[in-house]
Amino acid sequence: MSQSCLHERSSKEEIEKGLRLQPKFDENGLIPCITTDVHTNEVLMFAFMNKDALENTIKTGKVTYFSRSRGKLWVKGESSGQVQRLRELRTDCDQDVILCKADIGENGASCHNGYRSCFYRKLDPQDQTLVFDGGEPLFDPEEVYGKG
Amino acid sequence: MSQSCLHERSSKEEIEKGLRLQPKFDENGLIPCITTDVHTNEVLMFAFMNKDALENTIKTGKVTYFSRSRGKLWVKGESSGQVQRLRELRTDCDQDVILCKADIGENGASCHNGYRSCFYRKLDPQDQTLVFDGGEPLFDPEEVYGKG
Repeated sequence: MSQSCLHERSSKEEIEKGLRLQPKFDENGLIPCITTDVHTNEVLMFAFMNKDALENTIKTGKVTYFSRSRGKLWVKGESSGQVQRLRELRTDCDQDVILCKADIGENGASCHNGYRSCFYRKLDPQDQTLVFDGGEPLFDPEEVYGKG
Repeated sequence: MSQSCLHERSSKEEIEKGLRLQPKFDENGLIPCITTDVHTNEVLMFAFMNKDALENTIKTGKVTYFSRSRGKLWVKGESSGQVQRLRELRTDCDQDVILCKADIGENGASCHNGYRSCFYRKLDPQDQTLVFDGGEPLFDPEEVYGKG
Protein backbone atom coordinates (compact mmCIF):
# COMPACT_ATOMS: atom_id res chain seq x y z
CA MET A 1 0.00 0.00 0.00
CA SER A 2 3.07 2.25 -0.03
CA GLN A 3 2.24 3.90 -3.35
CA SER A 4 -1.49 4.10 -2.76
CA CYS A 5 -3.12 7.50 -2.42
CA LEU A 6 -5.75 5.94 -0.17
CA HIS A 7 -5.19 6.67 3.48
CA GLU A 8 -6.56 5.14 6.65
CA ARG A 9 -9.62 6.80 8.15
CA SER A 10 -8.75 9.31 10.86
CA SER A 11 -10.66 11.99 12.78
CA LYS A 12 -13.96 13.56 11.66
CA GLU A 13 -12.15 16.89 11.32
CA GLU A 14 -9.48 15.42 9.04
CA ILE A 15 -11.97 13.42 6.99
CA GLU A 16 -14.28 16.40 6.39
CA LYS A 17 -11.78 19.26 6.20
CA GLY A 18 -8.52 17.53 5.31
CA LEU A 19 -6.61 17.03 2.10
CA ARG A 20 -6.06 13.28 2.21
CA LEU A 21 -8.31 10.78 0.48
CA GLN A 22 -9.59 8.53 3.27
CA PRO A 23 -12.50 6.63 1.74
CA LYS A 24 -14.85 4.65 3.91
CA PHE A 25 -15.45 1.15 2.64
CA ASP A 26 -18.48 -0.58 4.13
CA GLU A 27 -18.57 -3.97 5.86
CA ASN A 28 -18.35 -5.60 2.41
CA GLY A 29 -15.36 -3.50 1.43
CA LEU A 30 -17.42 -1.35 -0.94
CA ILE A 31 -18.00 2.36 -1.49
CA PRO A 32 -20.81 3.81 -3.66
CA CYS A 33 -19.71 5.58 -6.83
CA ILE A 34 -21.71 8.09 -8.87
CA THR A 35 -20.42 8.63 -12.41
CA THR A 36 -21.37 11.74 -14.36
CA ASP A 37 -20.65 13.10 -17.83
CA VAL A 38 -17.81 15.60 -17.37
CA HIS A 39 -19.27 17.83 -20.08
CA THR A 40 -22.92 18.05 -18.96
CA ASN A 41 -22.83 16.75 -15.35
CA GLU A 42 -25.58 14.31 -16.35
CA VAL A 43 -25.63 11.34 -14.00
CA LEU A 44 -24.69 8.33 -16.13
CA MET A 45 -24.67 5.48 -13.65
CA PHE A 46 -24.23 4.33 -10.09
CA ALA A 47 -22.19 1.34 -8.97
CA PHE A 48 -19.79 0.22 -6.25
CA MET A 49 -16.02 0.23 -5.99
CA ASN A 50 -13.79 -1.75 -3.71
CA LYS A 51 -10.26 -0.61 -2.82
CA ASP A 52 -8.72 -2.25 -5.89
CA ALA A 53 -11.32 -0.69 -8.19
CA LEU A 54 -10.73 2.78 -6.78
CA GLU A 55 -6.96 2.42 -7.03
CA ASN A 56 -7.24 1.08 -10.57
CA THR A 57 -9.48 4.00 -11.55
CA ILE A 58 -6.94 6.53 -10.26
CA LYS A 59 -3.95 4.68 -11.68
CA THR A 60 -5.26 3.88 -15.16
CA GLY A 61 -7.77 6.71 -15.70
CA LYS A 62 -10.38 4.12 -16.72
CA VAL A 63 -13.33 4.07 -14.35
CA THR A 64 -13.34 0.68 -12.66
CA TYR A 65 -16.05 -0.76 -10.46
CA PHE A 66 -16.50 -3.91 -8.44
CA SER A 67 -19.21 -6.12 -9.87
CA ARG A 68 -21.18 -7.55 -6.97
CA SER A 69 -22.98 -10.04 -9.22
CA ARG A 70 -19.76 -11.36 -10.78
CA GLY A 71 -17.66 -10.87 -7.65
CA LYS A 72 -14.77 -9.25 -9.50
CA LEU A 73 -13.22 -6.03 -10.80
CA TRP A 74 -15.15 -4.47 -13.63
CA VAL A 75 -13.22 -2.16 -15.90
CA LYS A 76 -16.16 -0.37 -17.49
CA GLY A 77 -16.15 -0.91 -21.25
CA GLU A 78 -14.19 -4.18 -21.15
CA SER A 79 -17.03 -6.03 -22.86
CA SER A 80 -18.97 -3.22 -24.52
CA GLY A 81 -16.10 -0.97 -25.56
CA GLN A 82 -17.83 1.86 -23.69
CA VAL A 83 -14.84 2.96 -21.64
CA GLN A 84 -15.29 5.82 -19.17
CA ARG A 85 -12.20 8.05 -19.19
CA LEU A 86 -11.74 9.63 -15.78
CA ARG A 87 -11.50 13.42 -15.89
CA GLU A 88 -12.11 14.27 -12.25
CA LEU A 89 -12.51 12.30 -9.04
CA ARG A 90 -14.32 13.71 -6.02
CA THR A 91 -15.45 12.55 -2.63
CA ASP A 92 -18.10 13.91 -0.30
CA CYS A 93 -17.84 15.50 3.14
CA ASP A 94 -17.58 12.28 5.12
CA GLN A 95 -15.75 10.47 2.34
CA ASP A 96 -18.16 7.58 2.04
CA VAL A 97 -19.09 8.23 -1.60
CA ILE A 98 -16.97 8.66 -4.75
CA LEU A 99 -17.97 10.90 -7.66
CA CYS A 100 -16.26 10.29 -11.01
CA LYS A 101 -16.62 12.78 -13.83
CA ALA A 102 -15.92 10.88 -17.00
CA ASP A 103 -15.67 11.37 -20.73
CA ILE A 104 -17.60 8.71 -22.66
CA GLY A 105 -17.44 10.41 -26.05
CA GLU A 106 -20.27 12.00 -27.94
CA ASN A 107 -22.00 8.73 -28.73
CA GLY A 108 -20.97 6.78 -25.68
CA ALA A 109 -23.45 4.75 -23.66
CA SER A 110 -23.23 3.82 -20.00
CA CYS A 111 -26.22 1.57 -19.58
CA HIS A 112 -26.21 -2.14 -20.43
CA ASN A 113 -29.51 -1.47 -22.21
CA GLY A 114 -27.67 0.78 -24.66
CA TYR A 115 -28.83 4.12 -23.29
CA ARG A 116 -26.42 6.97 -22.63
CA SER A 117 -27.46 7.07 -18.97
CA CYS A 118 -29.00 4.37 -16.79
CA PHE A 119 -31.49 7.01 -15.63
CA TYR A 120 -33.52 6.96 -18.87
CA ARG A 121 -36.93 7.20 -17.20
CA LYS A 122 -38.50 9.93 -15.10
CA LEU A 123 -41.63 9.84 -12.98
CA ASP A 124 -44.58 11.73 -14.43
CA PRO A 125 -45.91 13.66 -11.44
CA GLN A 126 -49.52 13.52 -12.71
CA ASP A 127 -49.84 9.89 -13.79
CA GLN A 128 -47.17 8.64 -11.40
CA THR A 129 -45.88 6.39 -14.14
CA LEU A 130 -42.42 6.31 -15.65
CA VAL A 131 -41.73 8.08 -18.92
CA PHE A 132 -38.82 7.22 -21.24
CA ASP A 133 -36.86 10.33 -22.17
CA GLY A 134 -33.27 9.09 -22.44
CA GLY A 135 -33.14 9.03 -26.22
CA GLU A 136 -32.68 5.96 -28.39
CA PRO A 137 -30.30 3.14 -27.42
CA LEU A 138 -26.82 3.84 -28.83
CA PHE A 139 -26.00 0.19 -29.31
CA ASP A 140 -27.83 -3.10 -29.52
CA PRO A 141 -27.27 -4.96 -26.25
CA GLU A 142 -27.75 -8.35 -27.90
CA GLU A 143 -25.05 -7.56 -30.40
CA VAL A 144 -22.63 -6.32 -27.77
CA TYR A 145 -23.21 -8.75 -24.92
CA GLY A 146 -24.75 -11.66 -26.82
CA LYS A 147 -28.18 -13.11 -26.13
CA GLY A 148 -29.31 -13.94 -22.58
CA MET B 1 -50.50 1.05 0.10
CA SER B 2 -53.54 1.62 -2.12
CA GLN B 3 -52.60 5.18 -3.07
CA SER B 4 -48.89 4.60 -3.31
CA CYS B 5 -47.18 4.89 -6.66
CA LEU B 6 -44.63 2.32 -5.52
CA HIS B 7 -45.24 -1.11 -6.94
CA GLU B 8 -44.00 -4.55 -6.02
CA ARG B 9 -40.92 -5.78 -7.87
CA SER B 10 -41.76 -7.92 -10.87
CA SER B 11 -39.82 -9.35 -13.82
CA LYS B 12 -36.47 -8.03 -15.08
CA GLU B 13 -38.20 -7.01 -18.32
CA GLU B 14 -40.86 -5.01 -16.49
CA ILE B 15 -38.37 -3.45 -14.11
CA GLU B 16 -35.99 -2.34 -16.87
CA LYS B 17 -38.41 -1.55 -19.69
CA GLY B 18 -41.68 -0.93 -17.88
CA LEU B 19 -43.53 2.19 -16.82
CA ARG B 20 -44.18 1.37 -13.17
CA LEU B 21 -41.96 2.54 -10.34
CA GLN B 22 -40.79 -0.67 -8.64
CA PRO B 23 -37.90 0.42 -6.44
CA LYS B 24 -35.65 -2.16 -4.85
CA PHE B 25 -35.10 -1.58 -1.15
CA ASP B 26 -32.15 -3.45 0.31
CA GLU B 27 -32.19 -5.79 3.31
CA ASN B 28 -32.37 -2.71 5.56
CA GLY B 29 -35.29 -1.28 3.61
CA LEU B 30 -33.12 1.41 2.01
CA ILE B 31 -32.44 2.65 -1.51
CA PRO B 32 -29.55 4.98 -2.45
CA CYS B 33 -30.55 8.46 -3.62
CA ILE B 34 -28.44 10.89 -5.65
CA THR B 35 -29.64 14.49 -5.55
CA THR B 36 -28.57 16.98 -8.19
CA ASP B 37 -29.19 20.66 -8.89
CA VAL B 38 -31.98 20.77 -11.48
CA HIS B 39 -30.42 23.81 -13.15
CA THR B 40 -26.79 22.65 -13.47
CA ASN B 41 -26.97 18.88 -12.90
CA GLU B 42 -24.25 19.33 -10.26
CA VAL B 43 -24.33 16.44 -7.78
CA LEU B 44 -25.32 17.97 -4.45
CA MET B 45 -25.45 15.01 -2.12
CA PHE B 46 -26.01 11.31 -1.68
CA ALA B 47 -28.12 9.69 1.01
CA PHE B 48 -30.60 6.87 1.53
CA MET B 49 -34.38 6.71 1.40
CA ASN B 50 -36.73 4.14 2.86
CA LYS B 51 -40.23 3.58 1.49
CA ASP B 52 -41.76 6.32 3.65
CA ALA B 53 -39.07 8.81 2.63
CA LEU B 54 -39.59 8.09 -1.06
CA GLU B 55 -43.38 8.36 -0.75
CA ASN B 56 -43.05 11.59 1.24
CA THR B 57 -40.72 13.04 -1.39
CA ILE B 58 -43.22 12.31 -4.16
CA LYS B 59 -46.25 13.45 -2.14
CA THR B 60 -44.87 16.67 -0.67
CA GLY B 61 -42.28 17.65 -3.29
CA LYS B 62 -39.72 18.11 -0.51
CA VAL B 63 -36.82 15.70 -0.85
CA THR B 64 -36.92 13.40 2.17
CA TYR B 65 -34.29 10.89 3.21
CA PHE B 66 -33.96 8.30 5.95
CA SER B 67 -31.27 9.23 8.44
CA ARG B 68 -29.39 6.09 9.33
CA SER B 69 -27.62 7.76 12.27
CA ARG B 70 -30.84 9.13 13.78
CA GLY B 71 -32.99 6.21 12.64
CA LYS B 72 -35.80 8.39 11.34
CA LEU B 73 -37.24 10.31 8.39
CA TRP B 74 -35.21 13.34 7.47
CA VAL B 75 -37.05 16.05 5.56
CA LYS B 76 -34.03 17.87 4.17
CA GLY B 77 -33.96 21.46 5.43
CA GLU B 78 -36.02 20.79 8.57
CA SER B 79 -33.18 22.05 10.78
CA SER B 80 -31.15 24.16 8.37
CA GLY B 81 -33.94 25.69 6.31
CA GLN B 82 -32.18 24.34 3.21
CA VAL B 83 -35.19 22.62 1.67
CA GLN B 84 -34.72 20.71 -1.60
CA ARG B 85 -37.76 21.24 -3.84
CA LEU B 86 -38.23 18.20 -6.07
CA ARG B 87 -38.39 19.04 -9.76
CA GLU B 88 -37.82 15.61 -11.28
CA LEU B 89 -37.54 12.08 -9.95
CA ARG B 90 -35.76 9.33 -11.86
CA THR B 91 -34.71 5.76 -11.34
CA ASP B 92 -32.08 3.65 -13.06
CA CYS B 93 -32.36 0.60 -15.29
CA ASP B 94 -32.75 -1.96 -12.50
CA GLN B 95 -34.57 0.48 -10.23
CA ASP B 96 -32.22 0.17 -7.29
CA VAL B 97 -31.20 3.86 -7.22
CA ILE B 98 -33.25 7.07 -7.09
CA LEU B 99 -32.14 10.33 -8.72
CA CYS B 100 -33.78 13.55 -7.53
CA LYS B 101 -33.32 16.77 -9.43
CA ALA B 102 -34.01 19.55 -6.97
CA ASP B 103 -34.17 23.31 -6.73
CA ILE B 104 -32.27 24.63 -3.73
CA GLY B 105 -32.32 28.28 -4.74
CA GLU B 106 -29.41 30.40 -5.88
CA ASN B 107 -27.73 30.49 -2.48
CA GLY B 108 -28.87 27.16 -1.16
CA ALA B 109 -26.49 24.72 0.48
CA SER B 110 -26.80 20.96 0.69
CA CYS B 111 -23.86 20.04 2.90
CA HIS B 112 -23.96 20.17 6.69
CA ASN B 113 -20.61 21.97 6.44
CA GLY B 114 -22.34 24.85 4.66
CA TYR B 115 -21.14 24.11 1.13
CA ARG B 116 -23.48 24.05 -1.84
CA SER B 117 -22.51 20.45 -2.61
CA CYS B 118 -21.08 17.77 -0.34
CA PHE B 119 -18.55 17.09 -3.12
CA TYR B 120 -16.48 20.20 -2.40
CA ARG B 121 -13.10 18.50 -2.89
CA LYS B 122 -11.49 16.94 -5.93
CA LEU B 123 -8.42 14.77 -6.18
CA ASP B 124 -5.40 16.48 -7.70
CA PRO B 125 -4.05 13.89 -10.15
CA GLN B 126 -0.44 15.01 -9.66
CA ASP B 127 -0.18 15.38 -5.88
CA GLN B 128 -2.92 12.85 -5.20
CA THR B 129 -4.21 15.15 -2.48
CA LEU B 130 -7.65 16.70 -2.20
CA VAL B 131 -8.22 20.27 -3.33
CA PHE B 132 -11.12 22.44 -2.10
CA ASP B 133 -12.98 24.02 -4.99
CA GLY B 134 -16.59 24.10 -3.81
CA GLY B 135 -16.66 27.81 -3.02
CA GLU B 136 -17.13 29.36 0.40
CA PRO B 137 -19.61 27.94 2.92
CA LEU B 138 -23.02 29.54 2.43
CA PHE B 139 -23.93 29.35 6.09
CA ASP B 140 -22.19 28.89 9.41
CA PRO B 141 -22.87 25.32 10.58
CA GLU B 142 -22.43 26.29 14.26
CA GLU B 143 -25.05 28.98 13.90
CA VAL B 144 -27.49 26.69 12.12
CA TYR B 145 -27.02 23.43 13.97
CA GLY B 146 -25.52 24.66 17.24
CA LYS B 147 -22.14 23.63 18.61
CA GLY B 148 -21.13 20.02 18.84
